[in-house]
Amino acid sequence: MGFGVVGAGVVGLLEQNAGRIAEKAGQAVTLKYILDIREFPGSPYAGFVVRDFALIENDPEVQVVVECIGGVGAALTLTRRALLAGKHVVTTNKELVAEHGAELQSLAEARNLNYLFEGSVGGGIPVLRPLAQCLTANHIREITGILNGTTNYVLTRMVRAGVSFEEALAEAQSLGYAEADPSDDIQGKDTCRKICILASLAFGRHVYPEQVATEGIAGVTREDVGFAHARGCQIKLLGRALPGPDGGPACLYVAPHFVRDEHPLAGVHDVFNGIWMEGDAIGEVMFYGRGAGALPTASAVVADIIDSVKHMGARKWVGWRPADSREPLTDENLRTAWYVRLDETGGGAVTEPMTRAERTAWEATLPHPPACCMRVL
Amino acid sequence: MGFGVVGAGVVGLLEQNAGRIAEKAGQAVTLKYILDIREFPGSPYAGFVVRDFALIENDPEVQVVVECIGGVGAALTLTRRALLAGKHVVTTNKELVAEHGAELQSLAEARNLNYLFEGSVGGGIPVLRPLAQCLTANHIREITGILNGTTNYVLTRMVRAGVSFEEALAEAQSLGYAEADPSDDIQGKDTCRKICILASLAFGRHVYPEQVATEGIAGVTREDVGFAHARGCQIKLLGRALPGPDGGPACLYVAPHFVRDEHPLAGVHDVFNGIWMEGDAIGEVMFYGRGAGALPTASAVVADIIDSVKHMGARKWVGWRPADSREPLTDENLRTAWYVRLDETGGGAVTEPMTRAERTAWEATLPHPPACCMRVL
Repeated sequence: MGFGVVGAGVVGLLEQNAGRIAEKAGQAVTLKYILDIREFPGSPYAGFVVRDFALIENDPEVQVVVECIGGVGAALTLTRRALLAGKHVVTTNKELVAEHGAELQSLAEARNLNYLFEGSVGGGIPVLRPLAQCLTANHIREITGILNGTTNYVLTRMVRAGVSFEEALAEAQSLGYAEADPSDDIQGKDTCRKICILASLAFGRHVYPEQVATEGIAGVTREDVGFAHARGCQIKLLGRALPGPDGGPACLYVAPHFVRDEHPLAGVHDVFNGIWMEGDAIGEVMFYGRGAGALPTASAVVADIIDSVKHMGARKWVGWRPADSREPLTDENLRTAWYVRLDETGGGAVTEPMTRAERTAWEATLPHPPACCMRVL
Repeated sequence: MGFGVVGAGVVGLLEQNAGRIAEKAGQAVTLKYILDIREFPGSPYAGFVVRDFALIENDPEVQVVVECIGGVGAALTLTRRALLAGKHVVTTNKELVAEHGAELQSLAEARNLNYLFEGSVGGGIPVLRPLAQCLTANHIREITGILNGTTNYVLTRMVRAGVSFEEALAEAQSLGYAEADPSDDIQGKDTCRKICILASLAFGRHVYPEQVATEGIAGVTREDVGFAHARGCQIKLLGRALPGPDGGPACLYVAPHFVRDEHPLAGVHDVFNGIWMEGDAIGEVMFYGRGAGALPTASAVVADIIDSVKHMGARKWVGWRPADSREPLTDENLRTAWYVRLDETGGGAVTEPMTRAERTAWEATLPHPPACCMRVL
């Protein structure tokens, strides 16, 4: 469902690696329909395109439905209908999983179906399944990620080429790394959805994006970048999630950070993503790779398809429980050093570790409010 | 089986995170016996220690056996007996998997049992399961890894502290990072076993360590380290594996390399491991974390135990077919730049990309043979 960049990547990969996929799935995986409201004249797949979901819903040969529509409108309606019709669903739709993941998982669970979404976080980087399966003996103490390739590209160019935010963004758009309307990326909303999914899985309860204070990168200046460089730091947009004493999600936020060069996330540049975690047994671990793009994301989708086909009568990995509340989850009590730029002319300082409230109290002693503040990782 | 550092870590983690493990496994996971030839007077687990494997073999309550004995003597015999007795086996024994993995997997498969060994490569870093499950739609084009924490610590100290190989090794031993007899680490044998397991899994056919040309780090000098630094490189001991045209394992070797600072593996320091891969769909991806230690490795073992418990009647992920031959798998045709140190006084050069044979031909034109050669990544 949805024959855009990722949908076309999935169709292409199913054909390109058909032999390997059949071997791994234990049977051939064949494209039956492409649902899209558009027409694709001249496409070799034009004959697969249908507009009526009922065809798919009522076809007993369709066992797995792939949702690459995006958004929470038609995607939500059709995902519900597909699950109610007894079909496994695989998606890349981070917005839908972040907003309705718990509901769709319980719908799938009640019918012994899989609702899988590895491609919704980190593109093709294996991260949700390793978190759910391989780190399952761990209490996760923190997840911190560079989760959006567009903003990471922009920040990398500001550092390496010394260009302004606006110039770097224009460059990203001309290279196809940023959408025509890049506001969800730049404002941190995309990162927010992804850290919500990671936190929900790691801490066992649904977290809604509306609960998470989210700051983008539009306020990052060349002066900040220069100051970071002089301090042995990189500026990165991070999503962070930490559990509370009961193990549930407690502290989540999205904001640009100073990341010290010694931290593995400092070496994640360009359009790459890095997801860093700490568990009580494993210590620190990081997953690195291309966080977007047709083929990397298709790689995750096809792995989920194969898993669904191999486990037709069995649920693969369970998700999380519904949220306890929709109250904000703040970073209020998190104590870190802060970078504080005092004015527009570029003077700046790095503080001792302090909470947000302590920083605010300290700022009140300054002659005028700072122009910019960022946590230091 | 085997109450050493890792075995004790597993027992400790089973107790420490018992609630979480029971929740994830769907039932409590309880320690029944510890098999060891030693006695552990004063240990709170002394009452679990037995010396006779028949007790375990004949106890229908024992469903999963964890092998942390190491080596290919008793470990092989007892793993065979455990599988023949209908018990799932989880291991951290890279030597056993690298030498007898295909045989033990087929023994397990014939009885619908799991033989799982996530902890044998990369300690607790999730890498084998993501490779087998999440990257399954990909043809893997290359696996290159920093797979041994001891040697990576030694090389990091040579760079950062400017000490000699011998001094760095003595330091690693005093910190407990290197064994009293570190020869398997230093000579690259440990890295060799791990790249064999990764290659077997990625390329579908067993690779024996004896097929893999293996060079350690004892020949790396402070001059090499200094020259690497000046060229924007790090010296790292790498295991590398590339497939042939048929997708089977074709080129495997272990050797120290110059790794350019832009490469993600260049940022993997101290006792950390990094496993970098490239797939035809996903592009490049890297897994990073602590490659050894009691708790990280126990984290992988317990995840395998949970998987075995959850899938009592089902096989989780299959391994690979037996080897086609035991002929050497060389790096003969691999074309890379080379670092060539011409003499003991430290002069060195980096060549254009060439194969090993081309380099040898070029060396014949030099006044005397070089003191040291390393591939550049």
